[in-house]
Amino acid sequence: MKNSLGTSVILTLFGESHGLEIGAVLDGLAPGIPVDEAFIAAQLAKRRPQGKTDTARREPDAFRIVSGVFNGRTTGAPLCILIPNTDTRSADYEKNLGLPRPSHADYAAHVKYAGYEDWRGGGHFSGRITAALVAVGAIALAALQAKGIRIGTHILRCGDVCDQAFTDIDGEIKALESKDFPVIAPIEEAMTARILEAREQGDSVGGVIQTAVTGLEAGVGEPWFSSLEGVLSNALFSIGGIKGVEFGSGFDFAALRGSQANDAFCLEDKEIRTTTNHNGGINGGISNGMPIVFNCAVKPTPSISRPQQTVNLLTGQEATLQLTGRHDPAIIRRICPVVKSLVAIVLCDQLALRHGTDWLR
Amino acid sequence: MKNSLGTSVILTLFGESHGLEIGAVLDGLAPGIPVDEAFIAAQLAKRRPQGKTDTARREPDAFRIVSGVFNGRTTGAPLCILIPNTDTRSADYEKNLGLPRPSHADYAAHVKYAGYEDWRGGGHFSGRITAALVAVGAIALAALQAKGIRIGTHILRCGDVCDQAFTDIDGEIKALESKDFPVIAPIEEAMTARILEAREQGDSVGGVIQTAVTGLEAGVGEPWFSSLEGVLSNALFSIGGIKGVEFGSGFDFAALRGSQANDAFCLEDKEIRTTTNHNGGINGGISNGMPIVFNCAVKPTPSISRPQQTVNLLTGQEATLQLTGRHDPAIIRRICPVVKSLVAIVLCDQLALRHGTDWLR
Amino acid sequence: MKNSLGTSVILTLFGESHGLEIGAVLDGLAPGIPVDEAFIAAQLAKRRPQGKTDTARREPDAFRIVSGVFNGRTTGAPLCILIPNTDTRSADYEKNLGLPRPSHADYAAHVKYAGYEDWRGGGHFSGRITAALVAVGAIALAALQAKGIRIGTHILRCGDVCDQAFTDIDGEIKALESKDFPVIAPIEEAMTARILEAREQGDSVGGVIQTAVTGLEAGVGEPWFSSLEGVLSNALFSIGGIKGVEFGSGFDFAALRGSQANDAFCLEDKEIRTTTNHNGGINGGISNGMPIVFNCAVKPTPSISRPQQTVNLLTGQEATLQLTGRHDPAIIRRICPVVKSLVAIVLCDQLALRHGTDWLR
Amino acid sequence: MKNSLGTSVILTLFGESHGLEIGAVLDGLAPGIPVDEAFIAAQLAKRRPQGKTDTARREPDAFRIVSGVFNGRTTGAPLCILIPNTDTRSADYEKNLGLPRPSHADYAAHVKYAGYEDWRGGGHFSGRITAALVAVGAIALAALQAKGIRIGTHILRCGDVCDQAFTDIDGEIKALESKDFPVIAPIEEAMTARILEAREQGDSVGGVIQTAVTGLEAGVGEPWFSSLEGVLSNALFSIGGIKGVEFGSGFDFAALRGSQANDAFCLEDKEIRTTTNHNGGINGGISNGMPIVFNCAVKPTPSISRPQQTVNLLTGQEATLQLTGRHDPAIIRRICPVVKSLVAIVLCDQLALRHGTDWLR
Repeated sequence: MKNSLGTSVILTLFGESHGLEIGAVLDGLAPGIPVDEAFIAAQLAKRRPQGKTDTARREPDAFRIVSGVFNGRTTGAPLCILIPNTDTRSADYEKNLGLPRPSHADYAAHVKYAGYEDWRGGGHFSGRITAALVAVGAIALAALQAKGIRIGTHILRCGDVCDQAFTDIDGEIKALESKDFPVIAPIEEAMTARILEAREQGDSVGGVIQTAVTGLEAGVGEPWFSSLEGVLSNALFSIGGIKGVEFGSGFDFAALRGSQANDAFCLEDKEIRTTTNHNGGINGGISNGMPIVFNCAVKPTPSISRPQQTVNLLTGQEATLQLTGRHDPAIIRRICPVVKSLVAIVLCDQLALRHGTDWLR
Repeated sequence: MKNSLGTSVILTLFGESHGLEIGAVLDGLAPGIPVDEAFIAAQLAKRRPQGKTDTARREPDAFRIVSGVFNGRTTGAPLCILIPNTDTRSADYEKNLGLPRPSHADYAAHVKYAGYEDWRGGGHFSGRITAALVAVGAIALAALQAKGIRIGTHILRCGDVCDQAFTDIDGEIKALESKDFPVIAPIEEAMTARILEAREQGDSVGGVIQTAVTGLEAGVGEPWFSSLEGVLSNALFSIGGIKGVEFGSGFDFAALRGSQANDAFCLEDKEIRTTTNHNGGINGGISNGMPIVFNCAVKPTPSISRPQQTVNLLTGQEATLQLTGRHDPAIIRRICPVVKSLVAIVLCDQLALRHGTDWLR
Repeated sequence: MKNSLGTSVILTLFGESHGLEIGAVLDGLAPGIPVDEAFIAAQLAKRRPQGKTDTARREPDAFRIVSGVFNGRTTGAPLCILIPNTDTRSADYEKNLGLPRPSHADYAAHVKYAGYEDWRGGGHFSGRITAALVAVGAIALAALQAKGIRIGTHILRCGDVCDQAFTDIDGEIKALESKDFPVIAPIEEAMTARILEAREQGDSVGGVIQTAVTGLEAGVGEPWFSSLEGVLSNALFSIGGIKGVEFGSGFDFAALRGSQANDAFCLEDKEIRTTTNHNGGINGGISNGMPIVFNCAVKPTPSISRPQQTVNLLTGQEATLQLTGRHDPAIIRRICPVVKSLVAIVLCDQLALRHGTDWLR
Repeated sequence: MKNSLGTSVILTLFGESHGLEIGAVLDGLAPGIPVDEAFIAAQLAKRRPQGKTDTARREPDAFRIVSGVFNGRTTGAPLCILIPNTDTRSADYEKNLGLPRPSHADYAAHVKYAGYEDWRGGGHFSGRITAALVAVGAIALAALQAKGIRIGTHILRCGDVCDQAFTDIDGEIKALESKDFPVIAPIEEAMTARILEAREQGDSVGGVIQTAVTGLEAGVGEPWFSSLEGVLSNALFSIGGIKGVEFGSGFDFAALRGSQANDAFCLEDKEIRTTTNHNGGINGGISNGMPIVFNCAVKPTPSISRPQQTVNLLTGQEATLQLTGRHDPAIIRRICPVVKSLVAIVLCDQLALRHGTDWLR
């Protein structure tokens, strides 16, 4: 599959940044799942640009559910949500026609699509498309919550400002739900300052997002080629800007000995648990009942207002690019709800495979 | 799909550590690709335990091609390679029956398969299965080489001993091909010493593997849900012990500004290239013509000879595990050819999708 | 996959008969394919109810392309077409709430979706959904025509009135393109009479549709599990009312000896052809370069105005159903463009797999 | 997927008629399913040539299970069964090298695989491969029987000799299980006579196979693109010689009025049933709880001993082909267990999707 994800619960995204509408189809969800439009709106609000740190492109995300929901519940048929594009200013992009933006998809897309791609605002590669993903993801998220599975994401690092890692996961996930700027420690101000500083310098910053999932049973995932790490990372790397995914101790494992890194099994209230969670809740590609914990590396937003060197695809000459559109100096806050939505959809798929199509109801 | 990988070129693995035979089916390869059994044997030799640092389980890997090859070339029909298991000592495992090894798949598999799993030597989760993967991967590797695409892997880090990163990639890949211990700088001795030190202490070490691909055209990969990063990472996370995958600067992006991290476009011999390669050759999920570069975090081999705490699944009591089987104190050297094989198979699939089933011939 | 079809070119349908809109996403089409909205409209017109023989539900099918097309050509990104539902009269259905219509999907859907299905007008099972399929299919059809591949469908039989089978296929396909009532021989009047007769009797008629494809190269299809017959039949059986698919002589093979049924190879203008085409252009699941010819059995439209016995799902009692909605006494004419569209999409997928994603451009 | 079938339970076939071994991998079966080697052997015996009517190629089918079974039960890991090829006489085929057999896959395969195909005995297209399919199918069949689902196949027609159609399905399926020549009425002698008559004339006969499934719950299948008819027919058309598939009244629907063809709902012991079963147990692509009934058209065995016209692919000249190998004048009896196995595997997949991976245990 190409622009689709999943085996039993299948997500398909379509739309371009400056097209009429963007949309997502989520097929294979159990029938009977309650659909709360206010919750969808709230999730979209978390992804929407806001405050001083985000792009000036502000759209209401007036979504509409065109199929798959009847009397407030999923029907089991493909669920499609559409969101019109309203605040598009193609003129910002037209001046840079033929000038691929460094570290953006422009050039790779130009080769792949032989010049036929819709280059306005990044076209189908635009982060704008994730609005539709977040809309359908909200339904998946709510369905999982009803089963006791909770997903939390926070900015673990933004530039050189670090949040604390998950420790008391359940409480921290709960606390994060009500925050617009998702951090655990009181470091919103420091991070915001660093982002604004970058903007003033016509620059941008990268970071790391940490995600935890609690309440996921042991036994989810497949040994070869659909490991839980594999299906999650495949989904996550679709999000523009994510360039690394590590589970549990991840790259820190390199510095550990087996005797330090192994998670010993123990009994807690007669349940089998591990005393540590270096493996991030996954052994052999399969969940082991501990919280799933992973980090995503996010590169600095490629759109910066400093002049950059590029090559003019129309003339074949080197050229200087000066971006003047509306950009985020740090996309990382807005990626958090996208990660959360995508993880929810992947887990719905995995659980539907394991327990059947109706289990999530 | 479960134990299968790919869309146009499809890999299926089967077998258990202590079963009769292990095998791999590679379906969808172009007809007419030369199959060089000596090259397959050479690749298997690279994966085989050797020297002082590896497990004492030594098997000849007497593979046989049972289908899909005729007159020395692929036929286009499914190609199956089988390798008998010979040096199995189930008794080593029987003593620890019911005692899941920490950080191994044992417990997660026990839950997933409801106690019906073949637990001997890790069963289907065993690294042993990768022998079959390397055997069919050798054919993919050779097919790509004939198209000018080369893949190199080396141990970037083993415990606290670091190799140098890829710099002169073409030359380094070539040099690595003739090495049994794949490192770029002259640090084999230092790494070996660290591994033996760990073994003496009944312990094991982790590390990082770096991989580079040269000669891959721009335009390979899909924007959403089959990004090149996504399909590669999904494959890589199937390899036991890999817990993190980062492309280009990966987690180091967090410390960079956009103005530092962006890869400016330039002309080199009239070809569009980038002046740096922080993105590891992939933009928006699609190859941009620069070398693909990525790192995999490898956790310390979970099998250590020190006593470990676990829970007896038969009695439901906490217990102490004392492993006495034959183990690798560092699996990392042997993972290198597996990574290489898997990347080759993923790229064959991507290129077959892009250029058609016969392109690789 | 569920509501999706294909491997390299992937169709996803969504929407319900009485929902806001219906839609189709066609992903994986080559970039650069011309999109002719007038041709799409013309194909939709062929599917639309018309004349005296069809349902009184008449909708303009005011489609809009919301993604995947830029400057009049496909971009290579997912192409979505939406069609609003306008002429819905749910009241017609509300009276029969809880009364599954015999030979319709109502009861099976009720069990499958546990009562959460949108039952109005057949919901997601409605033939209405095929409008979106025909819209995207028109693009596939045009792309194939540009490659010299032509698809023709006609009503081979309607009740007891029979058309002649394809003989001079190229000429007949061309002639059929301009006909609203797709038959080869001058039997429109006789068929129409039979349909109206059935309507007067509150009844409906079934029939057989014959399809031919010319210009398809030899070598398309896979031996096991993606035979050309298999992928076509899988697609065709999704069309409501199709209950049989036979290729070439199909069920007539039972009466033939091998010496009569075998298609001998011969040379025609130095090209290898067969003297007869009992196999309908497919041997071993793979096209052999002869025209693909197959028949689809279409059951009588289940919606009839005579009283029918059913069971009330709300009360659990047997009941009598009296339909009063707007129905087609013979759906067969309107199925022809749906078959044609679906075959075009399947062949685009097969050719993209064989020749690569860009071949169709 | 190519040589694979299924979504949750996945079948992969490999091997060639004259290769070392043939095999099948069945992945995704629930762990804990009992594996009865005697039952596998019995199913293989039903497929094996026997008596006067079948090919003289007789092989013992000495299968071995190389993975996925432990202590007599499935483990949940991929289950692979291998069968060595023993009685191969490539010399029979070598004389006709370059002469594609009419109505066989030879020519289509030659084009598809660009001349690299293993042409000996039909290579990967050989009916020989179905032995592996029947072996793994036996496990699926037994798992379904344990759930009360039974599958029966019989020769409805062979040349001009007809069996009676299923009437008392449960009893007839049971009776068929013990028959080597699967017919309901006492017509084995008449059919055998017709087959031998054809052989004497150097000819072959075709026929129709009828299949019924009882005990399948309502609600299985998907509306669009994975209808139960679609997935079954896709699987069935992979079997060499099957050229038509019809469900319920199939092509006979053309002669019926809706009032005759519709299956009225009624109550039987408080269960919802239909008074007739013209739809073969499937409405809208989804099972309705009635027996699944379908027919497959089987063309006459293409291998006949009469001289046939063909084209020499090496010289490019027309030529005469005189087959002297060992052939079946009627393959239809031997196809019955293959159909049964394939249907069992498809249903296991559908049920695993609906109820989860462990349901079949």
